[in-house]
Amino acid sequence: MSRNILLILALTCIISCNENMSDKKNTTEHLPAIALHGGAGNLEKLNLTEEQKNEYLHVMDSAVSQGYQILQLGGSSVDAVEAVIVILEDCPLFNAGKGAVFSHDGCNELDASIMSGADLSCGAIAGVRHIKNPIRGARKVMEKSEFVLLHGEGAEDFLEEQGIEKVDTSYFYTEHRWQQLLKAREKESKAHLDHDGEHTENDPDKKHGTVGCVAIDKFGHVAAGTSTGGLTNKKYQRIGDSPLIGSGTYADDSTCAVSCTGKGEDFIRIAVAAEISSRIRFANEPLDKAVHTTLHGRLVAVDGRGGCIAISPTGEIVMDYTTKGMFRACIEKDGKKTLAIY
Amino acid sequence: MSRNILLILALTCIISCNENMSDKKNTTEHLPAIALHGGAGNLEKLNLTEEQKNEYLHVMDSAVSQGYQILQLGGSSVDAVEAVIVILEDCPLFNAGKGAVFSHDGCNELDASIMSGADLSCGAIAGVRHIKNPIRGARKVMEKSEFVLLHGEGAEDFLEEQGIEKVDTSYFYTEHRWQQLLKAREKESKAHLDHDGEHTENDPDKKHGTVGCVAIDKFGHVAAGTSTGGLTNKKYQRIGDSPLIGSGTYADDSTCAVSCTGKGEDFIRIAVAAEISSRIRFANEPLDKAVHTTLHGRLVAVDGRGGCIAISPTGEIVMDYTTKGMFRACIEKDGKKTLAIY
Repeated sequence: MSRNILLILALTCIISCNENMSDKKNTTEHLPAIALHGGAGNLEKLNLTEEQKNEYLHVMDSAVSQGYQILQLGGSSVDAVEAVIVILEDCPLFNAGKGAVFSHDGCNELDASIMSGADLSCGAIAGVRHIKNPIRGARKVMEKSEFVLLHGEGAEDFLEEQGIEKVDTSYFYTEHRWQQLLKAREKESKAHLDHDGEHTENDPDKKHGTVGCVAIDKFGHVAAGTSTGGLTNKKYQRIGDSPLIGSGTYADDSTCAVSCTGKGEDFIRIAVAAEISSRIRFANEPLDKAVHTTLHGRLVAVDGRGGCIAISPTGEIVMDYTTKGMFRACIEKDGKKTLAIY
Repeated sequence: MSRNILLILALTCIISCNENMSDKKNTTEHLPAIALHGGAGNLEKLNLTEEQKNEYLHVMDSAVSQGYQILQLGGSSVDAVEAVIVILEDCPLFNAGKGAVFSHDGCNELDASIMSGADLSCGAIAGVRHIKNPIRGARKVMEKSEFVLLHGEGAEDFLEEQGIEKVDTSYFYTEHRWQQLLKAREKESKAHLDHDGEHTENDPDKKHGTVGCVAIDKFGHVAAGTSTGGLTNKKYQRIGDSPLIGSGTYADDSTCAVSCTGKGEDFIRIAVAAEISSRIRFANEPLDKAVHTTLHGRLVAVDGRGGCIAISPTGEIVMDYTTKGMFRACIEKDGKKTLAIY
């Protein structure tokens, strides 16, 4: 009996040592890196004041820095992606969470998705109206359900069981988003691309974008997430690309992690996020070429517009777009930080 | 003025002649072909009687033949795909339209998608409860809306405006589907894969599958469509792969058209339909290899199960699955017909 106990102790020690070595190996091999976007569009037409630009830059700086810190402390890429997107959802500047635009019938319909490149697990919710942080909801679907995509009240029922914070619809009310809707309704115009000057004229209040984040952690695992309020004045419970795995979000440790923003329907048609991953896997394209060819080649060919952020398993970051700007920020594996709008 | 009129007449004649030549070229170059599926699963465990098998084979024969006739008469691949799926939706044997399974709360939630390889246009609806033929709804979204994917009541509002036939929920009531739900609820079991014996035991009433169709027309255009009632006892307004472009359905004239059936969540994770298309585009794999590697390689690697039908721009048909059977039928470009279950 005592021999057995000694054997168990010895084995435990070996496993523990191996785990420590494995952790150490991983921590020395992989430098964390992270990128976020806050929507693409013809941002010049926003005519942002210096003060407004600084507001955006400040929030993006804070978010990307907090995400990077999580990674540096050994947090997972999924943790970092969720934390960054929560910050952007809580900021009324962006079209996600608190700052979500109104749909045609005066509601806020929120969509989000998240994916882990480690095991291709993923979760998404669409058309929810009471979830304070949709990205947290998407993660719960990923980790606690057998499903990938849940919708509306059904999704909210599940998330309530999981203890996710629900809020009254009034939480999402912001005066400037409401005014956007009234103007859009008045014109009976088509649903509008989130940040786009072409369709939304020169009104800074109309053009706030989808948010997203990609990251790689110390263990070499990539992750991606996206969250949005969709299109101002959208109708018919339209679902865009943001909650759709393969369209707006994708992550695979063997290729890349991607989060997209733009004219969702065209991102679905091309399956943009999966296409970027496939170009790397099957055509051996480097990340920057895979992103560029997909956005400026195939997407443009179907009259699509927008952008994406992507990260490779070796920590390269690409932030590319076909519009005249994309709110974006990143901290590369050497610690270099970038904050940009145009 | 008269010179201008002559010039216009001459140009009109040239354009008209070119169009006729182009039509002629297309009609002589492309032989139509078509394939359908009625769901994959461990079909041996269904213990179908000869009579039951014949019922399935008869409906599949009728559907594939009618689709082929449309193509032979010069109809588009989109027309053929829609017509075939309408027949399968109207048949209570399959888990789509009339034969849809019940979700946990005793409703039928129907999903469908359709895509044209000619221009990558696509449309889909999810979670509808009153649309007699969801595939018709998906086509209306594709052709008459600026969106790709509409959900639930919003989708139904749009389709009502478009004159699509709505039915009372009682239309979808079938006694054996109701009994399936009661049994599933009783066991509080997990949501069940549509045709699968592993999870649904040996009860033939439980295992009816998603339907789909792919086709190529005389003009060389491919199309794909998929329609389903989802999983028996599904909860939380779960959306599977069937209405998701790139997951359950994809079509691109430069690669292939694909319709999938199986454990939807895993088809989403892999973006199966887009992956098959990407393997052809980027790795130059022939259709049969692209399908086989995706299903038996990547899908199996994430513990996924199911099958798909696919057609190439030169009319090759592949019907492959990882389960112990798939209801399937095709008419190849040489006119050869195949009807099979196991």
